[in-house]
Amino acid sequence: MTTGPGISRTPLPKGFKAGGVNSGVRRYRPDYGVILSETEAVGAGVFTKNECKAAPVQYCMGLLPSKHVRAIVTNSGQANAATGQEGRDKNWRMALSVSKTIGCLPHQVLTASTGVIGKQLEIEKLEEAGSELVEKATDHAELFALAILTTDLVPKTITTEVELSGGKVRITGICKGSGMIHPNMATMLGYLLTDVELSTDVAQDLVRKAADVSFNMISVDGDSSTNDCVFLLANGASGVALKDDADYGKFRDALFDLSKLLAQSIARDGEGASKLIEVQVNGCHDLDLARKAARGVTVSPLVKSAIHGEDPNWGRILARLGAEGVPASSLDQMQLTIQDHVLFKNGAPVEFDKTNVRSSLRADTIQIVIDLNSGRENATAWGCDLSKRYVEINTDYN
Amino acid sequence: MTTGPGISRTPLPKGFKAGGVNSGVRRYRPDYGVILSETEAVGAGVFTKNECKAAPVQYCMGLLPSKHVRAIVTNSGQANAATGQEGRDKNWRMALSVSKTIGCLPHQVLTASTGVIGKQLEIEKLEEAGSELVEKATDHAELFALAILTTDLVPKTITTEVELSGGKVRITGICKGSGMIHPNMATMLGYLLTDVELSTDVAQDLVRKAADVSFNMISVDGDSSTNDCVFLLANGASGVALKDDADYGKFRDALFDLSKLLAQSIARDGEGASKLIEVQVNGCHDLDLARKAARGVTVSPLVKSAIHGEDPNWGRILARLGAEGVPASSLDQMQLTIQDHVLFKNGAPVEFDKTNVRSSLRADTIQIVIDLNSGRENATAWGCDLSKRYVEINTDYN
Repeated sequence: MTTGPGISRTPLPKGFKAGGVNSGVRRYRPDYGVILSETEAVGAGVFTKNECKAAPVQYCMGLLPSKHVRAIVTNSGQANAATGQEGRDKNWRMALSVSKTIGCLPHQVLTASTGVIGKQLEIEKLEEAGSELVEKATDHAELFALAILTTDLVPKTITTEVELSGGKVRITGICKGSGMIHPNMATMLGYLLTDVELSTDVAQDLVRKAADVSFNMISVDGDSSTNDCVFLLANGASGVALKDDADYGKFRDALFDLSKLLAQSIARDGEGASKLIEVQVNGCHDLDLARKAARGVTVSPLVKSAIHGEDPNWGRILARLGAEGVPASSLDQMQLTIQDHVLFKNGAPVEFDKTNVRSSLRADTIQIVIDLNSGRENATAWGCDLSKRYVEINTDYN
Repeated sequence: MTTGPGISRTPLPKGFKAGGVNSGVRRYRPDYGVILSETEAVGAGVFTKNECKAAPVQYCMGLLPSKHVRAIVTNSGQANAATGQEGRDKNWRMALSVSKTIGCLPHQVLTASTGVIGKQLEIEKLEEAGSELVEKATDHAELFALAILTTDLVPKTITTEVELSGGKVRITGICKGSGMIHPNMATMLGYLLTDVELSTDVAQDLVRKAADVSFNMISVDGDSSTNDCVFLLANGASGVALKDDADYGKFRDALFDLSKLLAQSIARDGEGASKLIEVQVNGCHDLDLARKAARGVTVSPLVKSAIHGEDPNWGRILARLGAEGVPASSLDQMQLTIQDHVLFKNGAPVEFDKTNVRSSLRADTIQIVIDLNSGRENATAWGCDLSKRYVEINTDYN
């Protein structure tokens, strides 16, 4: 990784530009962002499974995968969800106005929104800001990353380079996570941009798999948004393709690693969070169960509160595993480790030095490893602790 | 209902006694309780679906339904969960010691525990307190209700009388809800006692159905305990049986109403709760979905925080319904009402007087009614708001 989240300017892959401006929807800060590809890019995406899908999500699901993407435009402050036909019309106008400035067809412009549910877009402001947005786009990711933030504290961008047999390619990831100035949802938006050549099939497969090991394994509060989406754009501007399995493997691993880092940065920046919690469920007989169990532990308010209090309360973890359906036979032979301290083994608690373990929980990253010793499937999920600040943010936001 | 939760002495049905003493596990307050039936009672129960089941849950699941129950003994402070074979042995000793004082067989004594997971029972203290516990049992429910409390603030007991064709019968309900002095779980224990004559089949069917419309529809924090159970004991001491469908209907309705009141009292007394939230999902095409959706809304930390902040944030409710799988087609024709104010109708937000709605949210019971207009199935769930106090209780408990 050449550039970490928010550390310095993050260069984009060849042929991409990105920008962000203030459209006037929010008072001061950038609230309207665009990613541009000079040429038509292959685009793929994965979207929220929430039945209540925002207008931009409905729109993009109808368009992707595609070989003709020229831009993704994103506004923050208004989610354009639960806004009916009027919302769909305004989403279309958002794509249309940007397409005019670029000089492409409207459905070559993808859209995303994040913000308050149930308010209609202030589309006139966005339409007016459209040309400035496109014109001021630069070759780095920061302005866009800023424009899509809500109550996130830190813009989240990473760029990495991969050496393939045909030459170097670049992948840039940008995302935003939990919360809003007027918070409604922990909406997650992710953008993966690369200058490698990909077919639509491979792009679609890769974005789904990348999301499954990263963005789909994080939780701030277990509430699933109306607006979540992860996009992958591949414009081929490097002139390099995935020639063989080795190339594919290298590219995939780099994409997955970058996606995981982005996902972790979202969890760490969760509303009120002071700690990143990583939960590994290893040795499970079933992958879906391993994923469900790992996520279950990261979602549990009792586990999250205990970690916030720096207490090694393994009983809450065990109880949650059972609640998620980990069979009693697995629980009887499992080993539970927190920060390298074994607390539970072979179905029974292990004596441990509480002072020692507690002090290890002062770290800002907490690792919980559950080895079920009953199969080969592993899953890792990330979450954050539950603090009074979370309740404050979500209670006193008016 | 003749007696409400914690208001005055709650009489028991004929032939029952109940008591509670301090065994020394907890410092001052009663921590060991018993319910006694003079004669053999029909016993039935429903138990946690958590795969990690406490020793007493495993024990009772093996015994029920039964025609020979003489007692239920319950300790608080230690959950006897994740305690392995040693825990099962100590659970057996708990039943054995009480059976000796009563003069019955050990497996005529049911057991339940609530408290910290993973600590072995201090069984010697319980064995020593066993005879005093049985001897001091009285004809009212309060001492038992007190002995099973953990971080509950209020003992929860209700008695009601039902006039059947053969005469009057009585039902007494006792329960405890969320939290512990050293909190580990929102363990829910429920005890339904009646002097009507029931067969084991009918008793088992009734307790399952009663739990489904009441205790299974409440949530404090979405974490499901290792120790949850609901018992129904029917000793027939009234000499009255359910002679016909009318009798059955009357008794069932009374049992369900009493169970719902108990369940509500648990939600209202949730850790850190200041408001009871009732969520009705009506007009759904599928009962399971209606139940899941109603529970989903009561569990959502975003909804719970908004209600705590007295904000009519209907977007969070809509988003949760979608996340629970309520189809977009239903969301498009739904009506959402909070405290009798319609906020969303036919797929679009309704203009409302925010000051007015906000002031209606100052009440201590908040009613959210979702009418999906797409079927005949209705479900009601209860929960509570999420306050900073919840985080405090579950963080700073050491």
